[in-house]
Amino acid sequence: MATGTGLPERVRITEVGPRDGFQMEQQQIPTALKVELIERLAAAGVDEIEAVSFVHPRVIPQMADAGEVLRRVERRPGVRYTALVPNLRGAERALDAGADALRLVVCCTETYNQTNVGLSIDESLELFGEIIALAEGGQVQVSVILAVAFGCPFEGTVPAARVLELARRFIDLGSRELGVADSAGLGQPLQVGSLIGQLRAQADTPLWLHLHDTRGLGLANALAGLEAGVARFDTSFGGLGGCPVMAGASGNIATEDFSYMCREMGLETGVDLDCVRQVSRRMEKFLGRELPSRILAAGTKEELYERNR
Amino acid sequence: MATGTGLPERVRITEVGPRDGFQMEQQQIPTALKVELIERLAAAGVDEIEAVSFVHPRVIPQMADAGEVLRRVERRPGVRYTALVPNLRGAERALDAGADALRLVVCCTETYNQTNVGLSIDESLELFGEIIALAEGGQVQVSVILAVAFGCPFEGTVPAARVLELARRFIDLGSRELGVADSAGLGQPLQVGSLIGQLRAQADTPLWLHLHDTRGLGLANALAGLEAGVARFDTSFGGLGGCPVMAGASGNIATEDFSYMCREMGLETGVDLDCVRQVSRRMEKFLGRELPSRILAAGTKEELYERNR
Repeated sequence: MATGTGLPERVRITEVGPRDGFQMEQQQIPTALKVELIERLAAAGVDEIEAVSFVHPRVIPQMADAGEVLRRVERRPGVRYTALVPNLRGAERALDAGADALRLVVCCTETYNQTNVGLSIDESLELFGEIIALAEGGQVQVSVILAVAFGCPFEGTVPAARVLELARRFIDLGSRELGVADSAGLGQPLQVGSLIGQLRAQADTPLWLHLHDTRGLGLANALAGLEAGVARFDTSFGGLGGCPVMAGASGNIATEDFSYMCREMGLETGVDLDCVRQVSRRMEKFLGRELPSRILAAGTKEELYERNR
Repeated sequence: MATGTGLPERVRITEVGPRDGFQMEQQQIPTALKVELIERLAAAGVDEIEAVSFVHPRVIPQMADAGEVLRRVERRPGVRYTALVPNLRGAERALDAGADALRLVVCCTETYNQTNVGLSIDESLELFGEIIALAEGGQVQVSVILAVAFGCPFEGTVPAARVLELARRFIDLGSRELGVADSAGLGQPLQVGSLIGQLRAQADTPLWLHLHDTRGLGLANALAGLEAGVARFDTSFGGLGGCPVMAGASGNIATEDFSYMCREMGLETGVDLDCVRQVSRRMEKFLGRELPSRILAAGTKEELYERNR
């Protein structure tokens, strides 16, 4: 099979719904519910959970209980519980609360980095060095997500050369993994394949992809990423995320849909689809609205076959 | 770019919303509105429109005005107006009404063919011969769509060997084009790439793909089809289709989303995205509900860039 060349056999999933999804919700999600959902997602077989963000509570009130959430979650062996940190204070709080790993978001354009985290890219590089110094003492891995790596809402299409340069600088500073994010759903499959190919040619640092389905290309971009050899993806249960007040807005690629696609293609994720779906249904009930995952709505092919038996 | 190998430069789109979409709607769409939408879709730059189905009005009342629709549409030079025909009587009516081409649906499994068109596959082959005989006198091309070519709701996964055999038999009978349909959204990218590769190795008859987005894999499957060299696709404006009474059901891949993906990948479709979107908006207004196209909801990347300028 021509398209099968280079596909990874085992695909690792980081469930980012509890961070990227929850932070978009206006309605405060009770701490106990967050803890319950995170525990159930871990039980569903994901490799990692981006559980919280240690952003200042004034900026994102939804994340005010980040420390408590991380402390209360009963840890499942083999699952990594990761925290997003925007600054040194956030990194300290994350380490205090027992995060297994830290992620720092750095945007590939100055305008977006300034808007998103209030820093120049050079300041973000400096901050990364400080967080590494803080965390490595405690054996906690710190990695960088290069956000708006394909297109930036403010600066348009992002040249691959800029992403490659930033990747090199962060790897030089000690990033042992690197996330590449299509934060606003502006990438397309050839661009994903091309950028990943160039990043892999530049360094053998493991890469992961963080894709949004804003313009419907989420799974096509994921396919291009798999074909280019990416073996780790951020996904969110039910496709939670995006903008809850904008009709039709869409978040990360859905854990259900991506893991279904992988399974159908014979790639192992370890994820129990039905367990994830039950978590999504619980969330739908809490939010009082449907989540965008297609598998959540339509079911798997086996379920269709079973119904018609 | 590795994934770019073998991609077609020009991609032809057949707009199937007026047939595959309209036939799913319970609410009768006025003939004048059908005619208006078909004319606007032709003006938007699609190559072909599957405009109507000459099925018996008792089976699908929505298509009772098929002849009138086809007669009233002002034809645009260069656009092919195609009719779906389930039987000889339908083919006669389609020819009388001036269809440029006829399409016959034949299912790859006996159970589905019996349920869908009330014939055995052998009877469908015979019917195809009769329709060819009827139509060729009038210089009208007749082609076959092999439905449920990846999975069948009743018989499960469809072996590629069966599709290859059916394709060979229809080509022998005179089918000069061949449609391959994932009618229930049961295919996956490797399967699409593999089946297309085998069909192209067997015969050089032009193929087109008809994909449904039921389980979210529509555009990923389309990407696999493009990579395997398919240069013609059925799509429906707004992603119209599927089951209007089932929440979350999804129809064909959306004309907007597929043509956006092609354009982003540098593949020419000739489709004016904004014209198609205006047709979708008109339809949303008539139906009183949102259509599933993501580009319809989120807009293109250029529109985002423009808003932030």
